[in-house]
Amino acid sequence: MSVARDLAAKILSVTNRDIPEAAEKWAGMAILDTVGVALAGSGEECVRLINGLAGAEGPCLVLGGATRTSCLEATLINAVAAHALDFDDVNLTMGGHPSVPLVPAILALGEIEGASGRDAILAYVTGFETMARIGKAVHFHHYEKGWHPTATIGIFGTVAAAARILRLDQDQTTTALAIAVSLASGVKANFGTMTKPLQVGHSARNGVMAALLARDGFTANPQAFEHEHGFFNVFNGPGTFDAGRIFEGWADPLDLVETGVELKQFPCCGSTHSAIYCMFDLARAHGLTAGDVAGIEIRTNPRRLPHTDNPEPRTGLEAKFSLQYVVARALTDGRVAFEHFEGEAWLDPAIRRLLPLVDVGEHPEMGRDTVSQFGAEVTVTTRDGRRLAARIDHQIGRGPANPMSRDELRAKFTDCAARALPAGRIAPAFDLLENLETLGSLRDLTDALEPDPRVRAAG
Amino acid sequence: MSVARDLAAKILSVTNRDIPEAAEKWAGMAILDTVGVALAGSGEECVRLINGLAGAEGPCLVLGGATRTSCLEATLINAVAAHALDFDDVNLTMGGHPSVPLVPAILALGEIEGASGRDAILAYVTGFETMARIGKAVHFHHYEKGWHPTATIGIFGTVAAAARILRLDQDQTTTALAIAVSLASGVKANFGTMTKPLQVGHSARNGVMAALLARDGFTANPQAFEHEHGFFNVFNGPGTFDAGRIFEGWADPLDLVETGVELKQFPCCGSTHSAIYCMFDLARAHGLTAGDVAGIEIRTNPRRLPHTDNPEPRTGLEAKFSLQYVVARALTDGRVAFEHFEGEAWLDPAIRRLLPLVDVGEHPEMGRDTVSQFGAEVTVTTRDGRRLAARIDHQIGRGPANPMSRDELRAKFTDCAARALPAGRIAPAFDLLENLETLGSLRDLTDALEPDPRVRAAG
Repeated sequence: MSVARDLAAKILSVTNRDIPEAAEKWAGMAILDTVGVALAGSGEECVRLINGLAGAEGPCLVLGGATRTSCLEATLINAVAAHALDFDDVNLTMGGHPSVPLVPAILALGEIEGASGRDAILAYVTGFETMARIGKAVHFHHYEKGWHPTATIGIFGTVAAAARILRLDQDQTTTALAIAVSLASGVKANFGTMTKPLQVGHSARNGVMAALLARDGFTANPQAFEHEHGFFNVFNGPGTFDAGRIFEGWADPLDLVETGVELKQFPCCGSTHSAIYCMFDLARAHGLTAGDVAGIEIRTNPRRLPHTDNPEPRTGLEAKFSLQYVVARALTDGRVAFEHFEGEAWLDPAIRRLLPLVDVGEHPEMGRDTVSQFGAEVTVTTRDGRRLAARIDHQIGRGPANPMSRDELRAKFTDCAARALPAGRIAPAFDLLENLETLGSLRDLTDALEPDPRVRAAG
Repeated sequence: MSVARDLAAKILSVTNRDIPEAAEKWAGMAILDTVGVALAGSGEECVRLINGLAGAEGPCLVLGGATRTSCLEATLINAVAAHALDFDDVNLTMGGHPSVPLVPAILALGEIEGASGRDAILAYVTGFETMARIGKAVHFHHYEKGWHPTATIGIFGTVAAAARILRLDQDQTTTALAIAVSLASGVKANFGTMTKPLQVGHSARNGVMAALLARDGFTANPQAFEHEHGFFNVFNGPGTFDAGRIFEGWADPLDLVETGVELKQFPCCGSTHSAIYCMFDLARAHGLTAGDVAGIEIRTNPRRLPHTDNPEPRTGLEAKFSLQYVVARALTDGRVAFEHFEGEAWLDPAIRRLLPLVDVGEHPEMGRDTVSQFGAEVTVTTRDGRRLAARIDHQIGRGPANPMSRDELRAKFTDCAARALPAGRIAPAFDLLENLETLGSLRDLTDALEPDPRVRAAG
């Protein structure tokens, strides 16, 4: 009996032919979105500080610039960038962010190996299922205890994805998973600091390292999961896990299809997103402008209110957690984007005038135990006395039944990429990513993601 | 309240003037011995494989060759080398190997900073006390649960040592300790594989990374130890630790003096060492040679027997765990060294002839609960009918009251270093290390440890 060996067999059993169209579509969207948020995060201070330690030149692109480094360092830096803004996607089964352990590793190893877009999708789907399955085995005790699943479960997703890109065999994949048990780390105590994205990037880097070492002949204990002093007992504790859940119903259906990946559309607290959507709907449907509005009532699930009912935000960060502010932005600007939380945007007089008109409270039909956990209803009273209402019960972009539209995805990518790429490079990169399954080599993608390849060519 | 902040204050409070002579002496011996075992381990397969991933050039020596790399990679590789043979020292309070988290980091950072021998000793003593104190707070639940303390506690020793070499202030040291909480990893499930030294080297590398990031302005939660989802609760669990023990009696006395560091003299199982000593004593005292001997009785504590009573070893590894073999070697060769466990040395006819004459059993006065946990008595019956006995109750080199002699230390260092350095380089390196407190810069030491500096100079 070896959980690592059995899991390795499952990981290697997935083929491109088995991947349903819905999974391929979601994998493509998630990879596209993750590249976008990594570009957006690439200029953050935590990324700059980690980048300062790397230094070594290599074949793998550091997103957001033209620097190339080793695949370990590129995975680290790009994963930190992808998580730096907490704008990357979520999966409920693993209890964390599924794409950040996968996409930077796939990109970096894919560049070295000349992997195709289809290889990338296979690696993504396999890695996603691995994390979801381990999540089923250890949650939610694992999460509640204080581990950071994006790191401590994510590392095994990285190993699985790396195993596919590197075409490891079962013994090598077994060993890579077992090595990763010794490298898994990351706790929730450091949430809210730069160390949160660090521990995520660190785990992704370490997953790649485990795969490379296993490929080269390194050794580890195939019983590293179920051993008395192995992953399950040490990280979770006796009686708090069910290893069998890794294997029961593996990939049938894929968790990527069943539970799905939740994309985050706006760079502000996820608890405010449904109200933003409602305001977009009202403004579009009725041609509303700020001057038309006499009052705005926002009603949401009470679970959303403690951290989002902020009638007078005093910093850009507070503005991200103010329903009043973001809904006023949605009305005034017709979009909610990074620039609205930067510098002194929160002081914008056009918004400050609206804030006193916004009333926030509990929705009478969206109780704590209803399905409308992220629901919202927005009612606008116009100066000419009309009352216009829009309601959303299930958050857009959250889950397979409710995807963001192509335009919404493109708008987010464009807003994200614009923080790192010149305008002319954004649409071509989007097009390549949108047609990932036809891409011959990931090297073409990373070339397209360099701000200006001539700088490197001339260097 | 912040354990990290209070611990940072303690770490920065130690000065060279506070360090008693005994601690300085032991720190010097341990640093010397660790450099030796790292040289000996530098040619191991696990080191070669990890070295293959590093690649980047930098200012820090990779022991055993003339390659120089970044301080992170040098720390990783040298620490893996120092632990690869499990020939490095032990401390009972931390429940692990105290010098491998400290010495490679001190060497690598010391080269960059131009630190002196006295700086190195201060960093060593401070790091040692930090690990011992955290050990007091979390043991032995931490160990019994399955964590590998040399890694999971060692990382904080590395941070403390790095903080001293880098001259971090209290805020930076606090942050570095808090970052390290997110990077701590390593479980006992991977003992007996290459991943054991990997997780030790990885932790040392990560401790240095935490210190460098903190120096540069990275952020982490100062409550990362005592937080609901922090080190104590997540790694140990509620009710299984006592944070106060970190601070009660800090450095008074230093654990390095009170509990001490245990050096390992022979490259075979520690449970055989006392019997080897006894045979050396008998051979010297009575001028015995193998031809004089009709029978050898070895009697030890019964705890030592299950893994060392092997009358007919069939590999070099089995020979390391054979009391019969190592005592025959001690008689025949007058030393026990690496070469005796390599290739087909275990088939040596001179030894095979002796093996049937060796009888191994429990010592009637060395019970499981006596002080003679590592005691042994060896009785030789000579061909001319004499019975000659030697007995040791406390293992040599284990603990401050029972040090290895200078000659023994030199013999071990020489045997170790000869695996990586040409003969002419060994004595000068030993002399520098033996007089560490007078060394102006660690760069002079690492220069002396290069096999042939002309190779680099000419490159």
